[in-house]
Amino acid sequence: MRIALAQINFHVGNFSCNLNKMVQAVNDARKQYADLIVFSELSVCGYPPRDLLYSDRFLAQCMDSVHQLAKACTDIGAIVGGPSRNDKSGGKRLYNSAFFLHDGAIQQVCHKGLLPTYDVFNEYRYFEPAKEFNTVVFKGKRIAITVCEDIWNINGLGMYPVNPPDILALQNPDMIINISASPFAWNHRPQRLQILMENAAKYKVPVFSTNLVGGQTDLLFDGASAVCNAKGKLVDVMPAFEESIRMYDIGEVLDHPGIEPHAVPSGPDKYRLMQQALVMGIRDYFGKTGIKKAILGLSGGLDSALTLVLAVDALGKENVWAVLLPGPYSSDHSVTDALQLANNLGVQHITIPIGDVVKSFDKSLEPYFADTNGGIAEENIQARARAVILMGLSNKFGHMLLNTSNKSEAAVGYGTLYGDMCGGLAVIGDVYKTEAYGLARLINEKDEIIPDNTIVKPPSAELKPDQKDTDSLPPYEILDPILFRLLELQQDPSAIIADGFDEQLVRKIARMVFMNEYKRVQSPPILRVSPKCLGIGREMPIEAVNGERSKP
Amino acid sequence: MRIALAQINFHVGNFSCNLNKMVQAVNDARKQYADLIVFSELSVCGYPPRDLLYSDRFLAQCMDSVHQLAKACTDIGAIVGGPSRNDKSGGKRLYNSAFFLHDGAIQQVCHKGLLPTYDVFNEYRYFEPAKEFNTVVFKGKRIAITVCEDIWNINGLGMYPVNPPDILALQNPDMIINISASPFAWNHRPQRLQILMENAAKYKVPVFSTNLVGGQTDLLFDGASAVCNAKGKLVDVMPAFEESIRMYDIGEVLDHPGIEPHAVPSGPDKYRLMQQALVMGIRDYFGKTGIKKAILGLSGGLDSALTLVLAVDALGKENVWAVLLPGPYSSDHSVTDALQLANNLGVQHITIPIGDVVKSFDKSLEPYFADTNGGIAEENIQARARAVILMGLSNKFGHMLLNTSNKSEAAVGYGTLYGDMCGGLAVIGDVYKTEAYGLARLINEKDEIIPDNTIVKPPSAELKPDQKDTDSLPPYEILDPILFRLLELQQDPSAIIADGFDEQLVRKIARMVFMNEYKRVQSPPILRVSPKCLGIGREMPIEAVNGERSKP
Repeated sequence: MRIALAQINFHVGNFSCNLNKMVQAVNDARKQYADLIVFSELSVCGYPPRDLLYSDRFLAQCMDSVHQLAKACTDIGAIVGGPSRNDKSGGKRLYNSAFFLHDGAIQQVCHKGLLPTYDVFNEYRYFEPAKEFNTVVFKGKRIAITVCEDIWNINGLGMYPVNPPDILALQNPDMIINISASPFAWNHRPQRLQILMENAAKYKVPVFSTNLVGGQTDLLFDGASAVCNAKGKLVDVMPAFEESIRMYDIGEVLDHPGIEPHAVPSGPDKYRLMQQALVMGIRDYFGKTGIKKAILGLSGGLDSALTLVLAVDALGKENVWAVLLPGPYSSDHSVTDALQLANNLGVQHITIPIGDVVKSFDKSLEPYFADTNGGIAEENIQARARAVILMGLSNKFGHMLLNTSNKSEAAVGYGTLYGDMCGGLAVIGDVYKTEAYGLARLINEKDEIIPDNTIVKPPSAELKPDQKDTDSLPPYEILDPILFRLLELQQDPSAIIADGFDEQLVRKIARMVFMNEYKRVQSPPILRVSPKCLGIGREMPIEAVNGERSKP
Repeated sequence: MRIALAQINFHVGNFSCNLNKMVQAVNDARKQYADLIVFSELSVCGYPPRDLLYSDRFLAQCMDSVHQLAKACTDIGAIVGGPSRNDKSGGKRLYNSAFFLHDGAIQQVCHKGLLPTYDVFNEYRYFEPAKEFNTVVFKGKRIAITVCEDIWNINGLGMYPVNPPDILALQNPDMIINISASPFAWNHRPQRLQILMENAAKYKVPVFSTNLVGGQTDLLFDGASAVCNAKGKLVDVMPAFEESIRMYDIGEVLDHPGIEPHAVPSGPDKYRLMQQALVMGIRDYFGKTGIKKAILGLSGGLDSALTLVLAVDALGKENVWAVLLPGPYSSDHSVTDALQLANNLGVQHITIPIGDVVKSFDKSLEPYFADTNGGIAEENIQARARAVILMGLSNKFGHMLLNTSNKSEAAVGYGTLYGDMCGGLAVIGDVYKTEAYGLARLINEKDEIIPDNTIVKPPSAELKPDQKDTDSLPPYEILDPILFRLLELQQDPSAIIADGFDEQLVRKIARMVFMNEYKRVQSPPILRVSPKCLGIGREMPIEAVNGERSKP
């Protein structure tokens, strides 16, 4: 038997687009003599459909797509993901299903049994978990069809009372097919491949897994669909961050000696992955919203430089517009560094000094600010004046403003709400400042694209004379590891202190993280590249901060 | 047996505050000869704790509070809500539990079986549903302890395969006690009371239900805890929107002839409920964040007038600061109406014209805007200039900016991101414009507090000459019923059209709602007073709009 894995970039709710791509893939697979083609989880409607699943019309469109795809599958079998109705009384009204299509019709429907409801997932909001698991027989082969999480409980995740492949194994399948939408994080792929290998080894059957590729707002999918042989060896990993269709003969898979498993990347490899994911994320968010051009404020600092490089990579230099907005405390090098970068990239750039606007605000507020000390309020006015200008250009010309905040500053609230926190998409909002340096070094690997001075100078918001980030924050090399423990590892401050970090500092940073939830709830969507993003997947109360949590 | 229902305003994560209030209630109940005191769902930690439940320290604090409360319960029994560990392997690591305390210790723990995971609820993210249900025996009475949703499947909600009271009924309990955190919506209480009555009638036992009271950010709880007799008659409903503790003798409850059930309110009754809920929501958000004073932009229009009245009611006139920000297209009556209202309420008010600031922006952008037609970009600059001034004052003096957007305009995107969409709390963001008129009429029932002219004049954003809301939108009396069907009733456009609404208009409005999700994701928390809010409880993809959903 010859199996085609079709990893496709679907678009939520764009049924004609999704269907066209699948029919095209079916035709491709047929030409290459495939017996069976496998699409990813919820492929007919795109992933994640969220509350569109409450719409009867949306569900009808899903079923219509399944039927239309079935018509294209006369001589070839297909496995396609989509929601299906739970007709039994009791339980949620939908299943997250895999439809097995052949002979121009739906032959069998398999439902997902393990519904992830944690971090970025909320599948139990919509779906009933399958209680029964049945294999499918096709061309003499018995196939265990599973949907994403179904194969993840092999080592007892601790979250689910059942392990669907154990039940399916009782029917002696010849292979496991897994359709998935497993979101990207820079360190996630080795674990995903490992799960496939462990299932193959445990059940002594080959495993074929199609994973979604593409960005859906903040959630990114790397594809990298994979095949394992019956000995639990990895046989192939398909390309990452692009659509792809590949054919696998079961015989060849079974005989394949296996390739090396992937390791968790570090150094430049890690940053290359992040870069590819972010570029895909920008491209898809613009592509799927239908917006062509981006605009951003270029300060001469690292974050906006990095965002610009990524945007140019994603959209093309002709589609990105850099705006320099020097303020009263901008240094000369800020302007020269920004201009240098814009010229290196060949992007259109304009300069709009904010001095007069800021003066105008200061004058308006003078009667009320007169007897006060200058501080955050005055600093924020500069950041917000920039935002008004950028949004003015955005509104006038239809370009989307890119947000340039990094994860470190978003975590501790070192950013101005309605100022530098503005934008339609937070490009590097899930990238710690120390990781931003890693990305910049990678970008400059061959040529100095980002001016060296942008990378080596001390980070500064330049909102008051001689300001440095370290006036308010610890150095990022100290801040980021603490944030990583608080956020990614979800450690309590006491556990971090027990690991040898400075008590006062850890408590201060934890407090800052909790205190600034109110800013982050108004943040644009953040492209998620880590296992714990400050945007999607984090649901933290705002008001708990004034209780004892404020002294964690 | 004498039972005390203690409806208390808890604060998420504020363990000492929550514990003190409960110990105080235990002492009160003891003085009034209660045998048993009943608190609401997750009372030790506050509701909803969200991702704080991932913290081991938080869970330890919860258990510590339970143990401390138990120590106060030597001679009196108590039922208190809190998370507890699921020690079995398989399943989520927590239960949503009711602890039965007596003799200074935890005597028994009952877990919630039905975990709401829809709309504003995501309990399956954290909790494992109980599989077993056991009654508790106390002073010769057998008590079926249930947690909120557990009693809601009595008519087969369709979402759950089990009905816990049916299982508990097999043990012949003498009463049902329900601890709940059932969020307020203007039409929700009759249904909640009806569920209590139906349980009492079906199982022929009295039902005692303590409901949470207070606001937790956007989620509001009205209290109105209730008691039913064994015939299914409502016996008592406790006060709404305030803390309260009441004693009930079982004998008296059983003999009580019953009171009238509540009907879904309409007219002034509906608006009075909304008003009370919004005032409580403002008061608690400020109280729990520790912020004393509010600031808002007062335009002379209805929305900011209404927000000001509610804020003054919640915080006191000395704690609210009104800022008039007349712009180039503000009418004379805007200023006079705003001043009239400020004077009627006796609040501090200042006037900061935005003309110079707007001119300064126009000048900065002139080189780029010169050959374009004036439009949305220019209008938004005015709204954003106001926001910069308001946020400047907010930052300088520590007052929280109140957002004044209504639900109708938020739904169709008739608001400026980073302009009038700014604020720490959206006070009337779940109030349709037509409902805002209802609230205004209620407020003016006795005296003309809101100037009549504010109510009768045609709504206008006043961002260009002679602008009216109806230039871009249908009249609110036409818009709001369509929005209600799209949002609250979750109807598809085709269903609304089938109900007799204009096809072109319905499709246009549905498209506007879908297209503006990108703005709403950056909205402040919205006080939820309806069964379907545009903030919490809505999880809609942003990018689906450009697919076929954009032509719904």
